[in-house]
Parts: sequence; C-alpha cells; structure tokens
Amino acid sequence: MARSLNLPVAASPRSVAEFDSARRTVVSAPEKEQAVTGREPGQPPSQDEFREAMAHLAAAVNIMTTDGPSGRCGVTVSAVCSVTDDPPTVLVCLNRKSAMHDVFKANGRVCVNVLDGDQQELAMHFAGVTNVSMAERFTWDIWDPGQQVPVLRDALVTVIGVVKDCKPMGSHSVLFVEIEQVRTRRDGRSLVHFNRSFHRLDSVAPTTG
Amino acid sequence: MARSLNLPVAASPRSVAEFDSARRTVVSAPEKEQAVTGREPGQPPSQDEFREAMAHLAAAVNIMTTDGPSGRCGVTVSAVCSVTDDPPTVLVCLNRKSAMHDVFKANGRVCVNVLDGDQQELAMHFAGVTNVSMAERFTWDIWDPGQQVPVLRDALVTVIGVVKDCKPMGSHSVLFVEIEQVRTRRDGRSLVHFNRSFHRLDSVAPTTG
Repeated sequence: MARSLNLPVAASPRSVAEFDSARRTVVSAPEKEQAVTGREPGQPPSQDEFREAMAHLAAAVNIMTTDGPSGRCGVTVSAVCSVTDDPPTVLVCLNRKSAMHDVFKANGRVCVNVLDGDQQELAMHFAGVTNVSMAERFTWDIWDPGQQVPVLRDALVTVIGVVKDCKPMGSHSVLFVEIEQVRTRRDGRSLVHFNRSFHRLDSVAPTTG
Repeated sequence: MARSLNLPVAASPRSVAEFDSARRTVVSAPEKEQAVTGREPGQPPSQDEFREAMAHLAAAVNIMTTDGPSGRCGVTVSAVCSVTDDPPTVLVCLNRKSAMHDVFKANGRVCVNVLDGDQQELAMHFAGVTNVSMAERFTWDIWDPGQQVPVLRDALVTVIGVVKDCKPMGSHSVLFVEIEQVRTRRDGRSLVHFNRSFHRLDSVAPTTG
C-alpha cells in the first residue's frame, strides 16, 4: 500500500454504517467495573448496552470483496465464522442498509480476506472511515492479479466461495458462503478487534501461567 | 475454581466433537509459507485444508450454558457473533452431533459467557477434553447464584437470551439467540483462540506503529 495514514482507532468495523453509528455511541459514562442491565423483566438491553457487550467479543478483522455484473466492492467485517466443513461453509453478517449488501448478493461470488496484523489501515479504508473512494482502493498494488474476485495478496487467509443462502435478521443479513478455494499463510499474525481497538496476535501464543 | 491443571493447548474448541476431531487432524505436513488449494475447478478444499484456514480465523472463546426441563449443560464454543441490535441478537454455531445440541434447543434459554483471559482451563473443561463430568463442573464455586441459566461469575461478558431460530447447515446448526440481559466487565481481558493456541488480549491495545 502506497500511503501511510495515522488514523484514529475507532469502534467496531462491522460495516460502514455500523462503524459510523458505533462511533457515535462510544460509552461516555464513568467507567465502573461492570455494567449490569436487564432492569425490568422483559425489558431488553438498550442498543448502547448491547453494543458495549458486543465490543468486548473479540473478533478477527476481515475484508469481504466481490466483483461481477453488479459491480466491484469490499467492506470491513468482523462478524464472520466457520459454520461446517461439509460442505465447507462460512457465514458473514452484513448490514442491509449498506448499498454493498445487494452487490454481494447479486454477484454471488465473494472473497473473505482475513487480515494480517499489519493491515489495520486497510481495515479502516474498507470500513469507510477514510476519504478514499472504492475505485481508488482497487488501484493499489495489494491485489492478486487474475482473480475473479479481489484477493488481498498479503491476507492471512483468503476463502473464496459462492453465496448459497441469505437470511435476513433485523438490520442485518447472514450470508452463508460455500467455500471453493482457500489459501492460508502460516507465518502471519492476526488482526483482532476488541474493546474498540485493534490488536495483533502472533501465531504462537506466549507461554501462559 | 479449585483446581489448577496443566493442560496441553489443543485445537479449536468449537464443540466437544469438533474439538476432538480437530485434534486428530492437526496438520503434520512440513510448514511452508502458504498453502494454496482449489487444485481443480469445482474441486472444494479438503476438510483438513478448510480447518487449517479456519484455525487462523481468530475468535473469542465462550462457554454457552443452559438449564431447564431438558437438563443442564455447557459447552465451549468459538463460533459466536453479533447479528443485529434490533432486536439484540447473537448467533452461535453448534455441532448437531453433540448430545447437548438438543438440550440447548429444547430448553430454549441460554447464556453465552464470553471468557476472560484467565479462564483458559474452563474452556478446556467445557470443550470436553478433560475427564471432569458435567455434573462436577456445576459444583464449582464459579457460578452466580439464583440465575435461571448458569452464569459464570467472572466472565468478561454474559448475554442471556432465548433461542428464536435454529438453522441446520451441514454438520452444525446456527442458533439465533435474542438477548434479554447483558453484563459487561470493563476491566477484563479477552481469551482468544488463534492457530490452535489460546491468547489473552488486554482491553487496551499496545501502541502500534
């Protein structure tokens, strides 16, 4: 990547819209050891309380990309997990308010690029919190040539597959992606988002007592 | 917890069955920088190749518990993510071969305990890789009294809710849990599983260059 930006560390980059709205709701109440909610029976937690809890659910940071008749795009997502290995399937939660939602669905073929510990700036660009256009991002010399969908050359893991199912759930959809191709680096680190900060994990854990 | 065990660090603890089968398939091939698969068009990655890729998708480690007419149990799961905050919903992927699968579904009410960095041994017990019975685990002085479902007192986050939907997908089900109560500690660390090892993340990221 040609540029080096000094970006603020921001809130959970699950999608553009969510990333932005999460930044507006960063908890400003005095810190205390724990926040207990569920004040009345049947009273669900507030949006802020739920987001605060979910900000403490550590997750790998990924950029999901697509290309095809409906266009080329990519978005930073953290709600990704393995579902089953028969057939090999991952799921990705995607905000339905994002214009990209329908592009991913319509193209049908996607790549989930699991980010390396050094790719924090890319996570910020694809979370839409910088002023770099989508078109410009795809001009950078960071992509593997000759792929049907954009594959980040230095990603820790890339999985490419086809959207087999899409389950709407509130503000989001859950895309079920059947995987046709995988590539894993064994020398990389993981970029993890936890408590509204980026962290890097070495592939070998430090000895714990 | 009364005991202190020196347990081997093992493979991805997504459920008992999967944890065990994953341990049997730890990659023994010579290490190389990256493994590229998808050898023939239309040829999916092997189970081992897909598992190797997913072992590099870092994830928080959680113990999901339930109690009710169908019984009390808990299992270590790493495939958990936030879906939407309206209504507040998380999803959990659970192996259908596990006897606990039907207990969670039938009871309907579950607690996802997001583990603190110091709770690695509990993760091992609830992954079923130690010889501690389910009944014994619930005798330890680690649970909050007076709860409908088992709540780990020192968990980093606990979310309690009701299974609203269950989508079968290959070997697993995806449980959609609508959250009614959350509790978040702000002073804790996160227990993360990455590359078949446990890692701890401090709540404040080290400064990165």
